Amino acid sequence: MNEIKAATGGTARLGDEIVSRINRLGTISETSENLARIFLSPEHRIAADLILSWMRDAGMDARLDAIGNVCGRYEGDKPRLPCLMLGSHYDTVRDAGKWDGPLGVITAIACVADLNRRGVRLPFAIEIVGFADEEGVRFASTLLGSRAVAGTFDESVLAGRDREGITMREAMVKFGLDPDHIGAAARARRELLAYVELHIEQGPVLEQQNLPVGVVTAIAGATRLAANLTGMAGHAGTVPMAMRRDALTGAAECIVAVEAFCKADGAGLVGTVGAISAMPGATNVIPGRVSFTLDIRAPTDAHRKLAVADIVRRIEAIAKRRDLLLQIDVTHENRTVPCAPWLKTQVAEAVAAEGYPVFDLPSGAGHDGMAMIDVADVAMLFVRCRGGISHNPAEHVEPADADAGARVLLRFIEHFRARA
Amino acid sequence: MNEIKAATGGTARLGDEIVSRINRLGTISETSENLARIFLSPEHRIAADLILSWMRDAGMDARLDAIGNVCGRYEGDKPRLPCLMLGSHYDTVRDAGKWDGPLGVITAIACVADLNRRGVRLPFAIEIVGFADEEGVRFASTLLGSRAVAGTFDESVLAGRDREGITMREAMVKFGLDPDHIGAAARARRELLAYVELHIEQGPVLEQQNLPVGVVTAIAGATRLAANLTGMAGHAGTVPMAMRRDALTGAAECIVAVEAFCKADGAGLVGTVGAISAMPGATNVIPGRVSFTLDIRAPTDAHRKLAVADIVRRIEAIAKRRDLLLQIDVTHENRTVPCAPWLKTQVAEAVAAEGYPVFDLPSGAGHDGMAMIDVADVAMLFVRCRGGISHNPAEHVEPADADAGARVLLRFIEHFRARA
Repeated sequence: MNEIKAATGGTARLGDEIVSRINRLGTISETSENLARIFLSPEHRIAADLILSWMRDAGMDARLDAIGNVCGRYEGDKPRLPCLMLGSHYDTVRDAGKWDGPLGVITAIACVADLNRRGVRLPFAIEIVGFADEEGVRFASTLLGSRAVAGTFDESVLAGRDREGITMREAMVKFGLDPDHIGAAARARRELLAYVELHIEQGPVLEQQNLPVGVVTAIAGATRLAANLTGMAGHAGTVPMAMRRDALTGAAECIVAVEAFCKADGAGLVGTVGAISAMPGATNVIPGRVSFTLDIRAPTDAHRKLAVADIVRRIEAIAKRRDLLLQIDVTHENRTVPCAPWLKTQVAEAVAAEGYPVFDLPSGAGHDGMAMIDVADVAMLFVRCRGGISHNPAEHVEPADADAGARVLLRFIEHFRARA
Repeated sequence: MNEIKAATGGTARLGDEIVSRINRLGTISETSENLARIFLSPEHRIAADLILSWMRDAGMDARLDAIGNVCGRYEGDKPRLPCLMLGSHYDTVRDAGKWDGPLGVITAIACVADLNRRGVRLPFAIEIVGFADEEGVRFASTLLGSRAVAGTFDESVLAGRDREGITMREAMVKFGLDPDHIGAAARARRELLAYVELHIEQGPVLEQQNLPVGVVTAIAGATRLAANLTGMAGHAGTVPMAMRRDALTGAAECIVAVEAFCKADGAGLVGTVGAISAMPGATNVIPGRVSFTLDIRAPTDAHRKLAVADIVRRIEAIAKRRDLLLQIDVTHENRTVPCAPWLKTQVAEAVAAEGYPVFDLPSGAGHDGMAMIDVADVAMLFVRCRGGISHNPAEHVEPADADAGARVLLRFIEHFRARA
């Protein structure tokens, strides 16, 4: 797939080691038949210890922080310098792939190991964080690891319970952490020169472009809405078409309108109706009530907010014209996190220097950068994954692409200049 | 509601007695909190005995037939004349209304009782049948009572089991019937001059027309289909609109197209998508697979078949354009049963003679006439019900409308001429 040859010389081929470690970490799972490495589980701890050992092997000081993040530090050419922070997360969803999260942690370690082998010290420190919880599977709250580092951790989550009824506080104690000192994980802005994350794309764009890597422009914000349409149930045979108040045909018109609106946008807007239910749901009964979800994302908050307002107006108009009662509510909202132009430029320079066309794309999925923006400028490098498939055992990255990502990241690190 | 005054004189006001009997029959239920009178249950037997007593009080010979139909005969002006058969069913759905079925049986008995009180004998016999099973709740096969009378009963249903695992054969024996002699319920065509049924509309058309009664043109046939669309699931944030194969937006376009096609028809075609499910059904995942049902009805078979073919072609075109895999199958099909013009004319004459505008409408719901057509010409008279609501405890008929239906039926009977 990767037909563009690397222009770099000198560095070891990093892809093979990365793939080997991805495979090894991928065996550390709560369940044997699939991959599930959930925050604060025994397997989560085993994975943390393994990553700590890899960090130490790469010449780093390594420790667990107050929330369970795996933290390694590679000193610069003098002690106590501010750091370039690299990272991603090491927790997974249930029935996960091996690459989502670990690739960013393992690649960063491989880069530092390469510097260390060559005895290279830079005019800044390098820190790598394996965030303990990005997916938010266990306590229904995402980005717990990076929020703790950014100093924005919401302590009310400590009282939240997992599906077995265990609170996060209890789980932390069992893991060996002190829930009363999560604040100790927080970092000051002056300690961090930037936060840069390598991650699989989780989408099909790089594959379509036939490129191993892409430069992220922004982590798209998202608005989630829940819509309910109420009409009048009736007998499928006895109510003439003109007398119907069919909630499902109304919802269908809304779904088609959302799609058409987003398609016409042409500037990165995506809108998805992922869940729908029609009541009473019998073949011979006109649906009297339908509920559906909406997920709207765009590269900027202004764009997304305008789009959401426009989409809601269109849905309101459809409901009104059809004499359906509409209830529509925002259930969740995430701001857009733009990648810092000065930092993104340096990532792009590394891509170009490795011989690849510079291709910009937004991240539609959420990442730890969404929390880290509160304490540092953020950039991201995407690595192609097969078929755009993620959160699935079929998630796959070609070794050559893992290697390309590592070479770009290593070059970025070696040429990194702090913001003036 | 009934602002058009009756032009008839002389006959007793029948509506009050009908409503009283509807209410009494409505208390005979398996469950105390709602109405459920299911085929061959103990309550079904209690109801049969009550209806038999009403028939005898009306001067009829009355008996249970081989399938459990309640049969009454009022002789004509000489013995053994062929009969005008009137009727409807006395079983109900679960959580039923009181009117669907019993109104036709009770009204017919009230008409015969009126003739009997006045000593009127006609040049034909009158038979009334309360069909034992029209709804098909217990053994998942409808019209069991009228099929037995029409001689089209499918004996394989005897081996079918209810949700407690009891076969129909066992239930018949417990009820006091002989499952080896269902054939004895069958009637010969020469015995029947016609089959005429009074029934609630179960739709909103008469209410909209502000009319207490309507003349049925045909019992619409129905085709039910199951459609499955398969696209590609994906992350709601990472797959650009132009690269999606969203099964739900495809299904939504199909649903809108079905509605538009049926609305444009203008000749009684109705099409309903009553059930839909989208997989995996998560807010942030593009649906990869959607299944939905289709129910298509029209006043003639030719009309329905053309419409089904056209709708399937439209759905196929949508699936093809969107690169979705389509599977669509007919799961159920009922022929249209036209009401016999000569008989319908006589019903219409009775409507007009009672002072009501003659209003024709198709029956979108199924009725016992669908089976009786195999042994006699069929006609139906609809009585307005509130809000078009049926199969629901809120099902309601105004006493004045029940009375109007009875007066029209009585006039029809007294003026009935057998087909030349």
